[in-house]
Amino acid sequence: MDSDEKPDAVVLLSGGLDSATVLALAVARGYRCHALSFDYGQRHRFELDSARLVAAAGGAVDHRVVKIDLSASGGFGCSALTDDIDVPKDGLAGAGETAGEVVGEKIPVTYVPARNTIFLSFALGYAEVVGSFDIFCGVNAVDYSGYPDCRPAFISAFENLANLATAATAGGGRRFAIHAPLIEMTKGEIIRTGLEMGVDYGLTHSCYDPASDGKSCSRCDACRIRLAGFAQAGAKDPLAYM
Amino acid sequence: MDSDEKPDAVVLLSGGLDSATVLALAVARGYRCHALSFDYGQRHRFELDSARLVAAAGGAVDHRVVKIDLSASGGFGCSALTDDIDVPKDGLAGAGETAGEVVGEKIPVTYVPARNTIFLSFALGYAEVVGSFDIFCGVNAVDYSGYPDCRPAFISAFENLANLATAATAGGGRRFAIHAPLIEMTKGEIIRTGLEMGVDYGLTHSCYDPASDGKSCSRCDACRIRLAGFAQAGAKDPLAYM
Repeated sequence: MDSDEKPDAVVLLSGGLDSATVLALAVARGYRCHALSFDYGQRHRFELDSARLVAAAGGAVDHRVVKIDLSASGGFGCSALTDDIDVPKDGLAGAGETAGEVVGEKIPVTYVPARNTIFLSFALGYAEVVGSFDIFCGVNAVDYSGYPDCRPAFISAFENLANLATAATAGGGRRFAIHAPLIEMTKGEIIRTGLEMGVDYGLTHSCYDPASDGKSCSRCDACRIRLAGFAQAGAKDPLAYM
Repeated sequence: MDSDEKPDAVVLLSGGLDSATVLALAVARGYRCHALSFDYGQRHRFELDSARLVAAAGGAVDHRVVKIDLSASGGFGCSALTDDIDVPKDGLAGAGETAGEVVGEKIPVTYVPARNTIFLSFALGYAEVVGSFDIFCGVNAVDYSGYPDCRPAFISAFENLANLATAATAGGGRRFAIHAPLIEMTKGEIIRTGLEMGVDYGLTHSCYDPASDGKSCSRCDACRIRLAGFAQAGAKDPLAYM
């Protein structure tokens, strides 16, 4: 804790609207927030640019970008988010269903192997460095039901691991908490929550396949989920679309 | 599995003698071994050079080095292994005790925050990519009693997490196993085991503070543990020392 006794928190920040909302929630709860993002071989850089803008506007006390290699050349290639394969357009599921929803046991091709496990592991290491016992992440089980590492059971298992893994808790006493405040919220609820706290969603980025000027495609899963969320929230998305 | 039905395994390989022994054990158990190392801002490169030699000599089918930033500049600096602070010499504990042993609740300064959690997380992602459900690591609870992430409870917690985290097991059925075959062995037992399998420990590297020509210092914790292990095993360390 710093001199004014605010507890420190590490906040995973992707540049998307979920993590922007999480940062606002963590700041509202009185944490000194250390934002943490990853440069993991994303196919475009708008995501990290957004993360920087969101960290600054959202009141993070600092913002680190850790470079890791999850791309094909690093051996982790099997996702449309990092590799040169087509991003699915106009929905994996039928019209009227939530974009990004999966059928049966199928996992979206935009899944990156063990991504949330890797990101939370870095957050845990960084929490030790800054002396924090609270990690916030924007995982959400509603719109991303196909991603196994977005489920409450995963978050609980990571919290258990964190409390066995680190020097900070090795002597007992303090315990890590992994906060996933959006996990049971719909995209519409997330956006309403953020708008009430004054989050500027115009700084965020969601599109998997943006134009070279950064404009969103409106057709990929991420855009479709986002636009449906703004419709649910009865609000207008401030982003520019092609 | 490949055409000859050998199961695939991911083997975390540091270049040290523990993971060289683990690779030999995994190969002996009939796995096609995919070696995985990390370029994480180590202060010297001998470790990765050794990992490459060990992977090739030890029968790994391939070897990946993933670049990640755990150094001070990446925000994770609080360890003598990556930062510019002095490596402890001639023991943290008194003469006659195992070097590297810690007193009370003290964690060695060579501890890197959440390192094993981060490494296992990458191994999990890589296992998904190569279609493996078996991850081997050289963690050891005996000589590294001060490292919380070297305990059996940590390995169990990670295995539990792995089976909740990934697409591979999301539908039930197959389960990941985290193998830590050295976890209850002394350094002497590890070395004896490896020598019986023909491991060439002359290819490995342990020293935290080697000379510019790669010669080991013999005085840092890692050298002291290693030399004590060879003494226990009744064998001569083939490495060159200053």
